[in-house]
Amino acid sequence: MAEVAKSLNLLSPDNPVFCCYCFWAGLLLLKMLLMTLITAVRRLTKKSFANPEDLALSKATEVNFHDPDVERVRRAHRNDLENILPYLLIALAYITTAPNIIVARLLFCIVAISRIFHTAVYAFRPIPQPSRAIAFFVPFTITLYMTFCVIIQMAKYV
Amino acid sequence: MAEVAKSLNLLSPDNPVFCCYCFWAGLLLLKMLLMTLITAVRRLTKKSFANPEDLALSKATEVNFHDPDVERVRRAHRNDLENILPYLLIALAYITTAPNIIVARLLFCIVAISRIFHTAVYAFRPIPQPSRAIAFFVPFTITLYMTFCVIIQMAKYV
Amino acid sequence: MAEVAKSLNLLSPDNPVFCCYCFWAGLLLLKMLLMTLITAVRRLTKKSFANPEDLALSKATEVNFHDPDVERVRRAHRNDLENILPYLLIALAYITTAPNIIVARLLFCIVAISRIFHTAVYAFRPIPQPSRAIAFFVPFTITLYMTFCVIIQMAKYV
Repeated sequence: MAEVAKSLNLLSPDNPVFCCYCFWAGLLLLKMLLMTLITAVRRLTKKSFANPEDLALSKATEVNFHDPDVERVRRAHRNDLENILPYLLIALAYITTAPNIIVARLLFCIVAISRIFHTAVYAFRPIPQPSRAIAFFVPFTITLYMTFCVIIQMAKYV
Repeated sequence: MAEVAKSLNLLSPDNPVFCCYCFWAGLLLLKMLLMTLITAVRRLTKKSFANPEDLALSKATEVNFHDPDVERVRRAHRNDLENILPYLLIALAYITTAPNIIVARLLFCIVAISRIFHTAVYAFRPIPQPSRAIAFFVPFTITLYMTFCVIIQMAKYV
Repeated sequence: MAEVAKSLNLLSPDNPVFCCYCFWAGLLLLKMLLMTLITAVRRLTKKSFANPEDLALSKATEVNFHDPDVERVRRAHRNDLENILPYLLIALAYITTAPNIIVARLLFCIVAISRIFHTAVYAFRPIPQPSRAIAFFVPFTITLYMTFCVIIQMAKYV
């Protein structure tokens, strides 16, 4: 019974690894939601709108898809979509492989902090490379590691 | 035992909050899938293709990335990616915080209907602002609320 | 008790359908992660960068958003975001409807292989239509089927 209960509650608040995942996932998703607000603020301050019906919000007279500040935030946001969302899905599967709790907590923490740093150096204070590349490849490598853990452990059930 | 069972089955069909989430998540994802079809239909009717190998599908002679009707659907679709996918992930974590069932069901319903309305006024019948802004900020605020619920409740496990 | 236990462990490694999902989800997410690397490699070889601070990585003198090889990978990647991520979320809900194990395993396998083929004919070896259309609509139809399964089965709880 103890054995069964252990495997049952991996995706529940009974599992500290899952709780830790939820906390950092919440922070990362909060960061992603703020990207939308930042895009909106930059569009208003730079009077650079993508839709004709938005032009009345300021004195802009035509749509503009080429403002460098707006496009920079949007590229950072798209990079989040391409990396944070897959990470959050694979991390959920990784939790069900019952990883070592200390390793898992450390990885969740490193990924979240690296991605926040990535946004800072991408969208707000562009600094010379390879700072953004490092902030990108650290969480990328961890995501790859989790993906291989999941694939290897689950391969026997296919 | 009753206590344990309660926390174990939060992400299962035993939990009515989870079932309700699945229903509205299904509707929202169905809406997102339809965006792809609408893009395809508009590309065919407007003869505006993004790939040279697609040109043979109609009498178009070159690729076109600037058709306003096609790009409008694509902007609405990208807005979905930026908002619905994070919402669905955080709502899953929110369910594990064992929220009040009436509140949770109401929030899932409001988010889904608002996002469907958002697509209607973005991609199909552009009407003057702030209609799209309202349809955007209602589910956005609910997503933020769920995110804070998750972060606060899970912070003690980090 | 047996009945309760059965419904509890749908999203756990006790459920072979879930394990099978995790394996194919891992492969699909691995494929998506590789898209980022391929974009980076093509940007370096074609000297086509989106950010001024990246220009120092090669001898490029200005940003370029129009390189056809880079943009092709990015379109394929965006197609993944629009289709694989919603599929992975709905498939998770589909598992909780306790589908037939043989059907579910077959569907997961077909979707993953079709999407990998889709990337191959989109980003690497563009071949005449309808090859890409078929590679798109097979997993698309399966995703729609899973979505309807979830909506119908969960509708009674709303």
